Amino acid sequence: MTDKKGKLFLFPHTLTKKGADKDAFLTPALIEAVGEIDGIIAESMTGGLSFMKMFQTKKAPHNMPICLFNKKTPDEDINFVLEPLLKGETWGFVADAGLPCVADPGAKLVRKASLKKLEVKAFYGPSSIFLSLMLSGFNGQNFAFNGYLASNKENMEKELRVLENRSKNFKSTQIFIEAPYRNTALLESCIKVLDKKTALCMACDLTTPEEVVISKKVCEWEGIDLSEFHKRPAIFLIDYHSFR
Amino acid sequence: MTDKKGKLFLFPHTLTKKGADKDAFLTPALIEAVGEIDGIIAESMTGGLSFMKMFQTKKAPHNMPICLFNKKTPDEDINFVLEPLLKGETWGFVADAGLPCVADPGAKLVRKASLKKLEVKAFYGPSSIFLSLMLSGFNGQNFAFNGYLASNKENMEKELRVLENRSKNFKSTQIFIEAPYRNTALLESCIKVLDKKTALCMACDLTTPEEVVISKKVCEWEGIDLSEFHKRPAIFLIDYHSFR
Repeated sequence: MTDKKGKLFLFPHTLTKKGADKDAFLTPALIEAVGEIDGIIAESMTGGLSFMKMFQTKKAPHNMPICLFNKKTPDEDINFVLEPLLKGETWGFVADAGLPCVADPGAKLVRKASLKKLEVKAFYGPSSIFLSLMLSGFNGQNFAFNGYLASNKENMEKELRVLENRSKNFKSTQIFIEAPYRNTALLESCIKVLDKKTALCMACDLTTPEEVVISKKVCEWEGIDLSEFHKRPAIFLIDYHSFR
Repeated sequence: MTDKKGKLFLFPHTLTKKGADKDAFLTPALIEAVGEIDGIIAESMTGGLSFMKMFQTKKAPHNMPICLFNKKTPDEDINFVLEPLLKGETWGFVADAGLPCVADPGAKLVRKASLKKLEVKAFYGPSSIFLSLMLSGFNGQNFAFNGYLASNKENMEKELRVLENRSKNFKSTQIFIEAPYRNTALLESCIKVLDKKTALCMACDLTTPEEVVISKKVCEWEGIDLSEFHKRPAIFLIDYHSFR
């Protein structure tokens, strides 16, 4: 045991595996911090490797340990994940895309690290939630992120109505995500159940050359060919008030 | 009139005027984009100048036009603000701190720019909302940002109860801000009105060497000397569930 305090660095990842946004991503502080790490905690092996490939690391890539942490990790394994940090090492944590601990279960890791008096430092980078909010033209003074909607159509439509009501009553933009192969179905349900004057935004392929952001009242969405958004990573926003 | 399409770039600003986080901030893509702009739309003159000083711009700083846009800007002036862009120029938009269009009224500008078929591009950078969420250890899979609470003590305490209820019922982290000189009063009210097992986080002086993030159950906050947070820029988070 050493008295040296271990560190947990929260690193952003690119939003796309295509690497299109790498150039917008590398800051001097991030490059320096990744150069310092002894290992990486990652949501997946591929995610961890694709992150480290962008940087010069202390050990050669094949000698750099990757430890998995994701929604399947049992709570009792978190101590094991943090063990090297408790011995004074510095490790990074990356999710498969965007910011760690946002729209993923990383908070548990941070909570345990803080309890163990490890130093936790967050670095910023792309987030589809923030980029879509900035580009939507929707209310950015009050907003909520709600994760995935229900996969069952009937429940999903119920949830859409609930979110529209929250947007109306709390004067806030409601943000949610969906598995890309269900984009078309989700948009059809939005057009079906939401008020015609509610604004609906879809942001697709953010930070790539194919980036598309469409912000329109529900009634204006009706003429759009929805099939072109099939299987493209997307995020959705509803704003009851701003476009009326 | 030219056929060249104008562009609106949404730029992040540092969180602090001390410039402590500048190094974590400069990406190749941001440096290139700022080099392209013909003028800057800023929340304040000081904010616009302190932003541009970090970069090499096309025109010398004293020749670079700064156009103000903030909560006092009447809606009918937005056309005037966008006029050079309609002639094909590229302008940036910066808030005084953090991401534009998040926790500020910039959305109106983006809305109008999109309606006028201008190209809008968002760059990312520090955001106290995201950094605090990542560092809090609170639920990042569902969260809401609520802006400022009421300045009247009684109304503020009512709002705190409402937010705690939303955190409880929607299983979401509730985030809000306060004018720094009211930090102590706000923390006192939180300790007074919130459930003892609700988790309360305050993140102070983010991205500076004085950065402090405290995440504790309300009952554990009771022994802390609150006066040390007086007048330090801070953001607050409530999570009913995660620390029970």
